[in-house]
Amino acid sequence: MNPPSVFASILTIGDELLIGQTIDTNSAWMAQQLNQIGIWVKRRVAVGDNREDIWQALDEELKQSDIVLITGGLGPTADDITKPLLCDYFGGKLIIDPSALSHVKYVFEEILKRPLLERNLKQAEVPDNCTVLLNKRGTAPGMWFEKSATNNEKKKIIVSLPGVPHEMKGLMADEVLTRLLHSFEMPKILHRTLLTAGAGESFIAERLQEWEEQLPPPYKLAYLPSFGMVRLRLTGIVTSESSTIDLLFSQLKEKVKDILVLEEDIKIEERVGQLLKQTEKTVASAESCSGGYIAHLLTSIAGSSAYYKGTVVAYSYDAKENLLGVNPNTLLNHGAVSSETVKEMLAGLLSRTGADYGIATSGIMGPDGGTTDKPVGTVWVAVGKKDNIISKSFHFRFDRQRNIQLTATHALLFLLRFLEQEEA
Amino acid sequence: MNPPSVFASILTIGDELLIGQTIDTNSAWMAQQLNQIGIWVKRRVAVGDNREDIWQALDEELKQSDIVLITGGLGPTADDITKPLLCDYFGGKLIIDPSALSHVKYVFEEILKRPLLERNLKQAEVPDNCTVLLNKRGTAPGMWFEKSATNNEKKKIIVSLPGVPHEMKGLMADEVLTRLLHSFEMPKILHRTLLTAGAGESFIAERLQEWEEQLPPPYKLAYLPSFGMVRLRLTGIVTSESSTIDLLFSQLKEKVKDILVLEEDIKIEERVGQLLKQTEKTVASAESCSGGYIAHLLTSIAGSSAYYKGTVVAYSYDAKENLLGVNPNTLLNHGAVSSETVKEMLAGLLSRTGADYGIATSGIMGPDGGTTDKPVGTVWVAVGKKDNIISKSFHFRFDRQRNIQLTATHALLFLLRFLEQEEA
Repeated sequence: MNPPSVFASILTIGDELLIGQTIDTNSAWMAQQLNQIGIWVKRRVAVGDNREDIWQALDEELKQSDIVLITGGLGPTADDITKPLLCDYFGGKLIIDPSALSHVKYVFEEILKRPLLERNLKQAEVPDNCTVLLNKRGTAPGMWFEKSATNNEKKKIIVSLPGVPHEMKGLMADEVLTRLLHSFEMPKILHRTLLTAGAGESFIAERLQEWEEQLPPPYKLAYLPSFGMVRLRLTGIVTSESSTIDLLFSQLKEKVKDILVLEEDIKIEERVGQLLKQTEKTVASAESCSGGYIAHLLTSIAGSSAYYKGTVVAYSYDAKENLLGVNPNTLLNHGAVSSETVKEMLAGLLSRTGADYGIATSGIMGPDGGTTDKPVGTVWVAVGKKDNIISKSFHFRFDRQRNIQLTATHALLFLLRFLEQEEA
Repeated sequence: MNPPSVFASILTIGDELLIGQTIDTNSAWMAQQLNQIGIWVKRRVAVGDNREDIWQALDEELKQSDIVLITGGLGPTADDITKPLLCDYFGGKLIIDPSALSHVKYVFEEILKRPLLERNLKQAEVPDNCTVLLNKRGTAPGMWFEKSATNNEKKKIIVSLPGVPHEMKGLMADEVLTRLLHSFEMPKILHRTLLTAGAGESFIAERLQEWEEQLPPPYKLAYLPSFGMVRLRLTGIVTSESSTIDLLFSQLKEKVKDILVLEEDIKIEERVGQLLKQTEKTVASAESCSGGYIAHLLTSIAGSSAYYKGTVVAYSYDAKENLLGVNPNTLLNHGAVSSETVKEMLAGLLSRTGADYGIATSGIMGPDGGTTDKPVGTVWVAVGKKDNIISKSFHFRFDRQRNIQLTATHALLFLLRFLEQEEA
């Protein structure tokens, strides 16, 4: 791949990341945003609340990247040491910033309605050699430092942001991205992604090998297996908008036509939602083993209230009978994890909610509950509409969390295939 | 904090991490495991599928840490370059490992039931100067490299693992952790964590300041705000098991007694489950705005089928009437987002499921649907039992995803408080 000209490092500060207490979701979001304006993230680094380690990481990342975005360590407590450190690192001194101060006062008096403490006033202190970025969603301001270009070195930009996700996101959107766009000449980073199901990574690679080897230099293909499916991402770093990536992407789609699920980097539940909106139909789910996770995925999509009717989560025999009208004899003769039961769950759900389409699941997620006949990971799923309900069994073999996610994902894919069939 | 003697770096490889396409959950899990056996993670670094960047990161991390754990880049496709790189880095050559080969054949013939391709056989190739770690859950073996101690430098260990989470976890549990325990003299890293609700980070810091300043040197307190609550973590790095941390932790608990929610590093839904198990009672949920996410959290806990009865997700007026028996007049007079409606949802749920306790939610998650009276983020929650249902309103002010999470978390906390009241 032709190297792009603007590199960034994302530096995350906090012991909680190093002991595994929190999962870093900030960096992924930041990387997406940077990519969209043509900045390539070269490295992501997490270090603890430790002055030496942060200092050293800053030194290293400034050697490798044009931009270093720092998150975390800006709170009002003793383990938050980023601000004085940055002040020393850039040889400034801490002063009270009047606009930050009036904002801190406003937040405490008008929004939090809590008395303002001495340590909160400290939130308005900033190094005198940075540009202060107003944090509308919190009290810790963002800080923008710039090292001008010299004969030996390009210009460097260092931005410090709070680690609280919605504060960081607000500052990126309000301030950082626009300022970065004005600071560098950017290339364009283009991505095209599709999702396949039904073939392993190596099979697809085998099929695409020749085509992949002939890709022109700034283009690169990546394989991302997830939940038993494979996402393919075509990336190009180019100096100006070009149709080449679309041409290559249509070649790629043609080559995987038989296993293609989605032509965009969207989720299966988003695509299901799009199809339902187009046809003005509705959906509901009757969940046993997936425990409401399908409902959660469907309702995570903004605007889903237009096509989502409702869900019944029925774990026990009782609940399957009372809430969904499953015949007790079906449960007795075939068990809760059976084609017969999921079909009756779905029929009961559709008549009770009036939804046009639906999904029903029943299975054994583990760690307990497995039998020789039906080991942990055995799942039955039904999808369809009032007069056409079909079912299918799956055999997952992982831990509880992953089995729940796999059940939901594959049940949604099963419904998507059904909806596409309806359209055809 | 007294520096612990064994440091690790976690190095994650893959462009998908740098463009933000996937969130790195592996590193947090690995860090937890390493901590438990006394290894302190000093740095976490992510680099792309690029030979130079990986090589340089290896150089750097080996300078800083005793152990470097690498994940990713071991697949069978062209963007997977870790193995040949490590082979060169340690000056070995690639050979077929007979046990890895027979395992690859076994996986394809017996489990995947797919024909074996030439490129899959490559999965059994390993550098001749590493110890091969059998990956029971996949085809890419783990690799263990060791650099003996010299006069100038301590012993160094480098382990390469696949990036697929369940494969990585299996290898860590089966092989890596035990081998690491035998390779170094470890200190003990002790953590004690509690959760508070109802007071801001700065207030708690103010209250704890004196106590925190007097903590003996190997102990350190951290503040982790999340979902409007604050987790406090006390960490000690000591040479042998000691009761000091428990003494300090009981002092801490005493100091935050009035805002204490949980005394352990567990989730609210786990604590709810423990209480229900102890009293042999059951729970159910009636969800509008939380869209099944409370059901998902409750059913994510292993063994939850003992106390979880079921959930009805009812988005529309229709569904609230048909599935939960809410009176149409209540909806008409008070609206779906009201104390009256959530109380009726809960009453209907309890009578239909026979659950002892329940939660009901209704609110506006955004981005659309807000009004002047009830802006986005307005939520009503009811909790209780048949003859005692109470309700409460919340005002969140974030994006859809976060509002759903906040609703679920605070609704579960509301129920937990109710259950504790029952016990008292």
